[in-house]
Amino acid sequence: MSAVFMKITFTKLVVYKNIRTNFFCKVKIMFSEVIATRFSDTDGLGHINNTMVPVWFEGARDPIFKWFMPDLNLSQWKLILAKIDVEFHAQMYYGEKMEIRTYIGRIGSSSFNVYQELWQKRGKCASGTAVMVYFDYETNKSLKIPETIKSMMQEHFILTDNNEV
Amino acid sequence: MSAVFMKITFTKLVVYKNIRTNFFCKVKIMFSEVIATRFSDTDGLGHINNTMVPVWFEGARDPIFKWFMPDLNLSQWKLILAKIDVEFHAQMYYGEKMEIRTYIGRIGSSSFNVYQELWQKRGKCASGTAVMVYFDYETNKSLKIPETIKSMMQEHFILTDNNEV
Amino acid sequence: MSAVFMKITFTKLVVYKNIRTNFFCKVKIMFSEVIATRFSDTDGLGHINNTMVPVWFEGARDPIFKWFMPDLNLSQWKLILAKIDVEFHAQMYYGEKMEIRTYIGRIGSSSFNVYQELWQKRGKCASGTAVMVYFDYETNKSLKIPETIKSMMQEHFILTDNNEV
Amino acid sequence: MSAVFMKITFTKLVVYKNIRTNFFCKVKIMFSEVIATRFSDTDGLGHINNTMVPVWFEGARDPIFKWFMPDLNLSQWKLILAKIDVEFHAQMYYGEKMEIRTYIGRIGSSSFNVYQELWQKRGKCASGTAVMVYFDYETNKSLKIPETIKSMMQEHFILTDNNEV
Repeated sequence: MSAVFMKITFTKLVVYKNIRTNFFCKVKIMFSEVIATRFSDTDGLGHINNTMVPVWFEGARDPIFKWFMPDLNLSQWKLILAKIDVEFHAQMYYGEKMEIRTYIGRIGSSSFNVYQELWQKRGKCASGTAVMVYFDYETNKSLKIPETIKSMMQEHFILTDNNEV
Repeated sequence: MSAVFMKITFTKLVVYKNIRTNFFCKVKIMFSEVIATRFSDTDGLGHINNTMVPVWFEGARDPIFKWFMPDLNLSQWKLILAKIDVEFHAQMYYGEKMEIRTYIGRIGSSSFNVYQELWQKRGKCASGTAVMVYFDYETNKSLKIPETIKSMMQEHFILTDNNEV
Repeated sequence: MSAVFMKITFTKLVVYKNIRTNFFCKVKIMFSEVIATRFSDTDGLGHINNTMVPVWFEGARDPIFKWFMPDLNLSQWKLILAKIDVEFHAQMYYGEKMEIRTYIGRIGSSSFNVYQELWQKRGKCASGTAVMVYFDYETNKSLKIPETIKSMMQEHFILTDNNEV
Repeated sequence: MSAVFMKITFTKLVVYKNIRTNFFCKVKIMFSEVIATRFSDTDGLGHINNTMVPVWFEGARDPIFKWFMPDLNLSQWKLILAKIDVEFHAQMYYGEKMEIRTYIGRIGSSSFNVYQELWQKRGKCASGTAVMVYFDYETNKSLKIPETIKSMMQEHFILTDNNEV
């Protein structure tokens, strides 16, 4: 499918154009969070330590958490993390801003993927996917994602290597 | 001295007025950093864990680090931390912005105090002081703080319980 | 291949017996590190927060780091992290010891996989793989893993879903 | 008082001998936890970052938490942190074990001080005090420390600069 679609990236908008049909087939909105990197984020090699990435990625999933728990009330939390992966593309540096871009990468009936990227001025530093499950902690059972949330997910959907058919 | 001065706080400006002489005797500028609190910052009691505070305080000392190392070059670092203390005034909550306010609390010949506060919408949550030394890691000796930096410190100077005469 | 091998696990020794040929074909040694879980490791849901797992996994890779840098000298570091993934199997609890088990999961010419598991008294809590590259930071090029290190890797090799043929 | 007492330190036992009267006047037991330092604990200067110290100190207060909540049950937690301070005495290094020594530094009616030290093979690296309050989170009021706990505190009591009369 990557042969069929041409990716065009604007600052906050990713459009997929089908290069066979010449139709723009999808429009997505991404969440963008910009943070300062900290002295304590570095490690002995002088770069940002890799263990900060899951911390930043989870932090930047707040807007998605709010779809399920609008006031982020911890006593009514209904999401559970099943799996994460992170790929490291380039060294990350202290003293430069870091942008965390967050998309939806797969929409299932009770689980979904959040796809995220880290960007510094040199380019993309890391990318990763978190598999999350809509979950009832009291009954220990997964729940069906409501259609209203699914439609918000659609707006933030991005094609990635992991969710392409 | 706290009996003599009346503290007037604006958003980014703290002015001390001598209530005996009726003169505004000091003007200070503070550094303000606003961050999002993260799910992973919480602990099992449902609040922000106290160990995040030294991380946030060190992160918010970046503008002060830049006085000494303008490009934050780690290989030419010339500051060392001698002591920190943190006082916890109120619970800190996830889902609310956190403001970190940073001032200079004492100006010595080679060492100085950074005084910092954490604020959420309910009020001041924590305050603390970091004692820093201008330091040459190669000779293992403290250095004299240049006058140009001292004058910048003066602009960010705040009276605290710890540095009042 | 999982149909051919039967896995037999002792405390510190994993043996694979070929159930067709009845031969024990592989003996592996695992690294085991036992740590205390901390109050600050928990999050607002009352369990250990997921972001601790990459920290613990990297910490438990020390014996593998020592194969390449016996004195863990940071100025001669020659490993780079390409990718991590973590699967979460069960809630992790504060107040219970945590065992981190570390194996080699794939042996390439210049890269290799470290496969790791977290165990608490209830059973396996998390598992994950780190893809590491033997790497020269000065020339920015990968290096060939020496045979002496490869043979140590063989001793710690474990069959996983990710490296089975 | 430091002129009157001579400190004699054994591995797990600190005895104070009154050098005027020649009497051993106090016997204290310390808690000792030994941990591995991790790659991710380092910062860009090649040492352990200072923000790890409050994390390690809080972790090593577990035996004291157990006096109040024997099963460390988070839903019945009854301690609150009022203040911490940390003094940094020497650089801390990755690749070396770290010992955390924990004592009681002051015993009040509802609050108490925990005094702690970090030791690596070169000597004492850091020391600090945590002021804790026995506290009812439901009524938001401090509680009186039971005598049974006070007597355990006495056994772990150490004279420090902060609690000497």
